[in-house]
Amino acid sequence: MRPPEEILEGLLAGDRVVLSRAITLIESVKEEHRELAQKVIRLCLQRPQSKTLRIGISGVPGVGKSTFIEALGLKLCEEGHKVAVLSVDPSSSRTGGSILGDKTRMTKLATEPAAFIRPSPSRLNLGGVTGRCWETVVLCEVAGFDRILIETVGVGQSEIGVRSVADFFLLLQMAGGGDELQGIKKGIVEMVDAILINKADGNNELAAKLAGEEIRQVLRMLQPFNPNWKPVVSECSGLTRKGLDEASEMLNRFSKEMVIDHRLEKFRKSQEMTWFETTVREEVVNRVLSERGLSAQLAEYVTGIEGDEITGVEAFESLLRQLQIQVRLKPEASS
Amino acid sequence: MRPPEEILEGLLAGDRVVLSRAITLIESVKEEHRELAQKVIRLCLQRPQSKTLRIGISGVPGVGKSTFIEALGLKLCEEGHKVAVLSVDPSSSRTGGSILGDKTRMTKLATEPAAFIRPSPSRLNLGGVTGRCWETVVLCEVAGFDRILIETVGVGQSEIGVRSVADFFLLLQMAGGGDELQGIKKGIVEMVDAILINKADGNNELAAKLAGEEIRQVLRMLQPFNPNWKPVVSECSGLTRKGLDEASEMLNRFSKEMVIDHRLEKFRKSQEMTWFETTVREEVVNRVLSERGLSAQLAEYVTGIEGDEITGVEAFESLLRQLQIQVRLKPEASS
Repeated sequence: MRPPEEILEGLLAGDRVVLSRAITLIESVKEEHRELAQKVIRLCLQRPQSKTLRIGISGVPGVGKSTFIEALGLKLCEEGHKVAVLSVDPSSSRTGGSILGDKTRMTKLATEPAAFIRPSPSRLNLGGVTGRCWETVVLCEVAGFDRILIETVGVGQSEIGVRSVADFFLLLQMAGGGDELQGIKKGIVEMVDAILINKADGNNELAAKLAGEEIRQVLRMLQPFNPNWKPVVSECSGLTRKGLDEASEMLNRFSKEMVIDHRLEKFRKSQEMTWFETTVREEVVNRVLSERGLSAQLAEYVTGIEGDEITGVEAFESLLRQLQIQVRLKPEASS
Repeated sequence: MRPPEEILEGLLAGDRVVLSRAITLIESVKEEHRELAQKVIRLCLQRPQSKTLRIGISGVPGVGKSTFIEALGLKLCEEGHKVAVLSVDPSSSRTGGSILGDKTRMTKLATEPAAFIRPSPSRLNLGGVTGRCWETVVLCEVAGFDRILIETVGVGQSEIGVRSVADFFLLLQMAGGGDELQGIKKGIVEMVDAILINKADGNNELAAKLAGEEIRQVLRMLQPFNPNWKPVVSECSGLTRKGLDEASEMLNRFSKEMVIDHRLEKFRKSQEMTWFETTVREEVVNRVLSERGLSAQLAEYVTGIEGDEITGVEAFESLLRQLQIQVRLKPEASS
């Protein structure tokens, strides 16, 4: 394997082969690969940071994410940006075929010299996936990509994970009939920086406009995730490329806003700290529950509660009386 | 101490002294008290369940919770209900003086023969408080109280805990200027069954009406917490008793809706199971983090991330490598 300095050099030269290999290194679960990967990341972080934007993009299946991301990616390339597309999918359903899948889904963008497409590994748990995603973003930025589009598949907890990696979080939404936000998962509306009503084309245009109006009113009344940014709602179409100029302008405006007072650096830092604390807590619970058939025991209690054999409070107290947790911190060998 | 059967008898006779003592028993942390308490609860749950409604009431300090709860409590008593007022406060700030405090706050309701006021113990953790709260509700119901008002102090996680005990969750809100929901904590708007704009009196009436309109539009577009109930928004005044008839009617309508197909029983059961699982997870994390100076270690990592000495991912992986958790399930001696 090449030494970390050489990998950094390759990245700085914008060598895509080096970038791809470095990402593979990062995605590895082997101890020696992780060590080398960390060294590369540390070297990358010592470089002066260029102005980049990490954009999380979410939306339910069928909302037209791929078409939109491809259109936005091409638009950003036209404007002189270098665009990396990553995707975060902690479920294992797309294992293996996903690299090919992403490139097939975005054929035009895949052949664009200023763009780079890479899905995330899917064999890791969520904390692992989002951690690796953050490291991949860092590599891409050192390799000269300044607009990083991070797609989530829109299932489970993945948006919360991506939100912690992204500077800007964009939700794609479809115009439906009436109750527009019914389809938006709980909690997500409170973490968006923009909601774009996609497929605002043809017969759909008016419906999208109305949906936009309604969502705008809702967002106006919720606390914005980012205190320096008022969430934007507008219509777009990945198909007709409607609204893409506006989307790109919005991102530029966000970028400018976040330069003031080092807001972006501060935001990223606080996101990183929050990510660390949340992920540690999740991992602790998962690790404890995976021990000694504890989750089976938990499930038994739940069945007992359902069948009126035990009350929730009794079950809670009984389990905690039985549960003995020993924690030890084994000091690391200093490297 | 009296045997559980005798306590049950006293409760069934509506004896307030027995009820008060039984609640004190439930709030005790002594092993023998807990055992007796569990026996009492089990006896209570074997009784045929009467039609009761558990109403969680939240709102920021200053919104007029006490005045409103007293007015609503009196109104419900007028209509022939027996009303118990409990409060949930996992913070220790009101320790000691809170019983007196609650009764002083609600002087009229405190002297009403059909009402019973009792704050929760505050020296327990949240899981403990909400668990005890649920048990207290069960006791009150056996003692003949059919409208249980559970007040939260509106800080931290207490609403989520109370939501899991309550059949119906009511948020009191004030009319402010413009961005009405800015003051509502994240996540709470998605778990309400009703938002009442309080202090809709005097010069405030129009502002409350407008705030109600805005909030109504937001709620119309969010998924309701209870699939069988569309959240209600209206104006009220604890002072002028405006809107209390409507509030009481709303609760009756909710009661009727929830009788269909045993919805209420099913809802309570699923809430109990969710409460159990969530609380176990919280307790596991808290227990692990309180061991061996782990939280200090965690804080150290966070400082390291802040000072750019370590990345979040490195900190995460390093901590998890060091962290050794041994879990043992010690079987309980069968009683």
